[in-house]
Amino acid sequence: MRQTNEFFDTQVIRKNNTDALDRVYTADARVLPPGAPMIAGRENIKGFWKQAIAGLGLKSVKLATVEAETTGDSVVEIGSADLTVGDGSVVTVKYVVHWKQDDGAWKWHVDIWNPNQ
Amino acid sequence: MRQTNEFFDTQVIRKNNTDALDRVYTADARVLPPGAPMIAGRENIKGFWKQAIAGLGLKSVKLATVEAETTGDSVVEIGSADLTVGDGSVVTVKYVVHWKQDDGAWKWHVDIWNPNQ
Repeated sequence: MRQTNEFFDTQVIRKNNTDALDRVYTADARVLPPGAPMIAGRENIKGFWKQAIAGLGLKSVKLATVEAETTGDSVVEIGSADLTVGDGSVVTVKYVVHWKQDDGAWKWHVDIWNPNQ
Repeated sequence: MRQTNEFFDTQVIRKNNTDALDRVYTADARVLPPGAPMIAGRENIKGFWKQAIAGLGLKSVKLATVEAETTGDSVVEIGSADLTVGDGSVVTVKYVVHWKQDDGAWKWHVDIWNPNQ
């Protein structure tokens, strides 16, 4: 899990390479971003992040696990994320991710977050 | 699950009776509201909802399940909620709830939401 969270920052966001999200999200994942409707399916999720990187000038997303609870073949993670945006300012959000195994790897199946302030 | 979601609206919010949250949240539940830090534990969560009902003039919260996935002894639910606030306007939010069994009943263990707009 920590590897995937770091991969999202170093290989997807910092390299502006949304194709690498194949290794982060399940094929039928759901993303629930604040201020927009739910996005369903990895291809649509790639479009969302492409737009977020360009629109916000998103430079880095550092994820830190606060709690992780295993249940059946899933994990429910609560975490905190520091988003560095275009002007260098950092926005902290909290998130919940439902992890599932997919092709032998742990991936994000449901991903929701909101701001702390 | 539907009963609990309706109970939250009819018995907690509409009656301004946060003591009834004993039947909604697990004792060690987590709530992650937009614009505030995470709240841990049912007693603190009662305080949060008491303040939300008073502060927003919250009159009703209608919950509708969009997807629910069972995993082990848990359910991860994605849903949509219509919040009716003091001036009668309705705010729609989307949410994710991690349900767990507690004292033989299904309850909310992790609860996070954010606005659609």
